[in-house]
Amino acid sequence: MEYRRIKDQDKDEDALKDDVESLRGNSHSGSPKNVIPLGGISVDRSKWKRKSIVTLALTILTSSQAILIVWSKRAGKYEYSVTTANFLVEALKCALSLAALTRIWRIEGVTEDNRLTTTWDEVSVYPIPAALYLVKNLLQYYIFAYVDAPGYQILKNLNIISTGVLYRIILKKKLSEIQWIAFILLCAGCTTAQLNSNSDRVLQTPLQGWLMAIIMALLSGFAGVYTEAIIKKRPSRNINVQNFWLYVFGMAFNAIAILVQDFDAVMNKGFFNGYSLITVLMILNHALSGIAVSMVMKYADNIVKVYSTSVAMLLTAVVSVFLFRFHLSLAFFLGSTVVSISVYLHSIGKLQR
Amino acid sequence: MEYRRIKDQDKDEDALKDDVESLRGNSHSGSPKNVIPLGGISVDRSKWKRKSIVTLALTILTSSQAILIVWSKRAGKYEYSVTTANFLVEALKCALSLAALTRIWRIEGVTEDNRLTTTWDEVSVYPIPAALYLVKNLLQYYIFAYVDAPGYQILKNLNIISTGVLYRIILKKKLSEIQWIAFILLCAGCTTAQLNSNSDRVLQTPLQGWLMAIIMALLSGFAGVYTEAIIKKRPSRNINVQNFWLYVFGMAFNAIAILVQDFDAVMNKGFFNGYSLITVLMILNHALSGIAVSMVMKYADNIVKVYSTSVAMLLTAVVSVFLFRFHLSLAFFLGSTVVSISVYLHSIGKLQR
Repeated sequence: MEYRRIKDQDKDEDALKDDVESLRGNSHSGSPKNVIPLGGISVDRSKWKRKSIVTLALTILTSSQAILIVWSKRAGKYEYSVTTANFLVEALKCALSLAALTRIWRIEGVTEDNRLTTTWDEVSVYPIPAALYLVKNLLQYYIFAYVDAPGYQILKNLNIISTGVLYRIILKKKLSEIQWIAFILLCAGCTTAQLNSNSDRVLQTPLQGWLMAIIMALLSGFAGVYTEAIIKKRPSRNINVQNFWLYVFGMAFNAIAILVQDFDAVMNKGFFNGYSLITVLMILNHALSGIAVSMVMKYADNIVKVYSTSVAMLLTAVVSVFLFRFHLSLAFFLGSTVVSISVYLHSIGKLQR
Repeated sequence: MEYRRIKDQDKDEDALKDDVESLRGNSHSGSPKNVIPLGGISVDRSKWKRKSIVTLALTILTSSQAILIVWSKRAGKYEYSVTTANFLVEALKCALSLAALTRIWRIEGVTEDNRLTTTWDEVSVYPIPAALYLVKNLLQYYIFAYVDAPGYQILKNLNIISTGVLYRIILKKKLSEIQWIAFILLCAGCTTAQLNSNSDRVLQTPLQGWLMAIIMALLSGFAGVYTEAIIKKRPSRNINVQNFWLYVFGMAFNAIAILVQDFDAVMNKGFFNGYSLITVLMILNHALSGIAVSMVMKYADNIVKVYSTSVAMLLTAVVSVFLFRFHLSLAFFLGSTVVSISVYLHSIGKLQR
């Protein structure tokens, strides 16, 4: 796989970071359709605006997803099948992408970049992220033999570190020393914010539990980084086309998951058994946040995704104080402080790169 | 009070930080006895060595003090009077300083810098730190009306922030942005490392409790920074002379504390009532760590003191695992990670100053 285009995109992104730099002109040969040299500053500002909007959207949607999950748990246990819900999420994302494309075809007509049909070359790698997520979700069932649900939430913070490491290895993007420190602080801060009286039990997780958590973190991280690589390999390709194909394979793999894990339940109780208003809202929200993730992969990167989902967690806790009368713990305030410092260090670390 | 000498000392310390700079020569008019231009590098290296040794000594002695406290609590409650013990600590420090001076007088003879007699000008400010500590210790009794002992341990971490702020205001020493961030992380990390299941109660501390904690943090911070100012005002004065006078006033104020707080108990039960081997060891250790603090004030600064006492806390916890079979919590590992990052950020922050 060639990554030259990704490196050109990197030059694009560096230009985005500094308006002063953009005054020197933006003629990059690699991506003629993305950057218009005329009015360089206003194009860069609109790109930065787009990057900010998708980041904000992802943060809010991730937070609302968590709030819906808390709400659904407090409203009572629903018996809907998680695998069918995930399948519908992929199907809905697929449908939304197709709807967006239809609108674009009406306005712009069908072009090389926005036509749905594709080559084997382009689409042969699209199944890989979906396959990785499937393996990870299957492993998720087995890890609960070694660790309980709160412990697993804590171990999931390893995803932060794995994303950073794989971002460096696979996309070959360097982070400055300060940014690496900021990453470790992000992981420590998120974990601290989640601490509760049961947290110490995670220290007794057997070795197999730790290994599985690390493997799952690597699978998640690799899937995320690989998705960014796929999307950015062809920067001029319309994001809705790329999403459509990613989600088609997502549907396929989730269908496999239903067959493997839930076949009996679905056959006996029905596909939509246990569905309620909250379930529908969760599916809708999950679909929108999935599309937001794609947008962040296209117009920002995995690092932004990791930061925005971490900040979303803090936002969820604060909103929960008002919605569910949560009490914020001292650990939460300490963790939030560390996460805020991490965000700040990451931003000042960029300038020194 | 003039601070010109302190700023010359600051130039001395900057020279210490970089051997390369010392090659350019070290003739400072302000402190001829401290810096010998001949063999500039070896003098700087020996100064850095001395700074490291006093820092290490303070860390170890602070840690051993805490271990002795834990040991004394586990061995059973002793009824010794804390005020009498503090008085003996000051008296012992005084005696040790005098012993060191006697040795120096025998070797070097009595000089302008190491003579014990002093002027009112020099010694008029020596009572101030001791007075501040007395007020703080008296307040300490009253704060327990608003917060329990573990909560108070958590609030004491505010001393870290107050020391940094007063260091900047009173000694007019600038910290770089990264170093300020490192300071906040140090405070957050220390607090995180101390978290336990009762920690959230500190969030319910009434306003008066918070105000008292802040006032005590300011008193402690001010006393520490002021002590450094006193000691560094006359950098050529022998540290044992400065210590002697500081501790004489320490003894005086602690005697006042005994009269105010413990007079009846001491008159009825005796000065040494409840003393045991552990009490004696604690007094000895406390005295040595107090002298180490003075050395750090002379050859390093309050920032180093704050960092070394924080690292000492982590060291204590680790040693307690082996001595007392403590179990380290997840919060401890997270807090230690953040403290370690703080130490590192502080050191790289220095280079950019």
